[in-house]
Amino acid sequence: MARLQRRLAEFAAARNWQPYHTPKNLVAALSVEASELVEIFQWLTPEESARVMTDPDTAHRVTDEVADVLAYLLQLCEVLGIDPLAALDAKIDRNERRFPVQESDGPLQ
Amino acid sequence: MARLQRRLAEFAAARNWQPYHTPKNLVAALSVEASELVEIFQWLTPEESARVMTDPDTAHRVTDEVADVLAYLLQLCEVLGIDPLAALDAKIDRNERRFPVQESDGPLQ
Amino acid sequence: MARLQRRLAEFAAARNWQPYHTPKNLVAALSVEASELVEIFQWLTPEESARVMTDPDTAHRVTDEVADVLAYLLQLCEVLGIDPLAALDAKIDRNERRFPVQESDGPLQ
Amino acid sequence: MARLQRRLAEFAAARNWQPYHTPKNLVAALSVEASELVEIFQWLTPEESARVMTDPDTAHRVTDEVADVLAYLLQLCEVLGIDPLAALDAKIDRNERRFPVQESDGPLQ
Repeated sequence: MARLQRRLAEFAAARNWQPYHTPKNLVAALSVEASELVEIFQWLTPEESARVMTDPDTAHRVTDEVADVLAYLLQLCEVLGIDPLAALDAKIDRNERRFPVQESDGPLQ
Repeated sequence: MARLQRRLAEFAAARNWQPYHTPKNLVAALSVEASELVEIFQWLTPEESARVMTDPDTAHRVTDEVADVLAYLLQLCEVLGIDPLAALDAKIDRNERRFPVQESDGPLQ
Repeated sequence: MARLQRRLAEFAAARNWQPYHTPKNLVAALSVEASELVEIFQWLTPEESARVMTDPDTAHRVTDEVADVLAYLLQLCEVLGIDPLAALDAKIDRNERRFPVQESDGPLQ
Repeated sequence: MARLQRRLAEFAAARNWQPYHTPKNLVAALSVEASELVEIFQWLTPEESARVMTDPDTAHRVTDEVADVLAYLLQLCEVLGIDPLAALDAKIDRNERRFPVQESDGPLQ
């Protein structure tokens, strides 16, 4: 992951894209890529959505959009100095206290 | 990252949330979390957005939303059998061919 | 609709919010409000989503988010000089040519 | 607006698209279209975003996406039985009480 963050930083630097990579622009780009994932699934039934990787073309599109989301998330973390894995570890800790096992009966809102 | 994916899977299993975690629902949740990041930045100037981590409360909110985006991205990859790091590596390879250094003068569209 | 656009403009002017209402910020706010609608529906089955107005609290939340989406859409149209009803009329004309009735077998992508 | 809602309903009915138009799917489609608007603006400075209608191609794209957002918003209102203009009118009333003029110094969060 650190290696990928370095590749992304070098990629942007070589093309002089850093001036565009304000945190505000990167979160917009992240949300646009997340929506491109939603677009693939928007008209599917839950059952169809579970079979989405059986079609090679759709599997490729989904994998490609996952990569785009991760790319912008890592670039955002780079410019803001956030460690995404540590952030998620801490968040799961908090959620384990917030949603104790016995009381839960539905998904995280 | 594999360890976090396992923690997330155990967290969801212990609360019987897996039936809700269809790919369609997870991409919706991912896009909602990405938008909660956008919400923090929506009225800021580019300059203000670059200083967002200097305020401890805002820094905490941003870090928390980054964790949420990563959590849903990893859970989506888990249910679809996608390796997010390999996907991003392959995507950077493709982008290096698609956007050769000398011709580029603007950001990745 | 013209009256609502005028109310929104006066509301923003009275609070000196116009400097924040760049087209870039308004589209971000619009997408955030659209995601707040998605959030209400993200874990529902298709069938549950069809019954969402039978619960008064949820009905109120949905109606409120619909209003927010429309508010930002109208404010965006105001600052950009777009007539949203004319834009939609023209779009339906184009879609009728693009998706002739006899050939269609699925939703607008 | 009522006429446009009727055109949209007839358009969908003629193509047998109503089964796809669950509220859950329509809010997803609405958020995808809102993100397509964001995509046009994501790398622009605030100043560039204010001049977006001076380029005919971009002006056409923006107008087209505005139409798509309105189309899904109206179709959502149709299936849920929401009057969008009444919803916005009521929302502005509430916001006038919530954000009294003299105390305000920033945008609606």
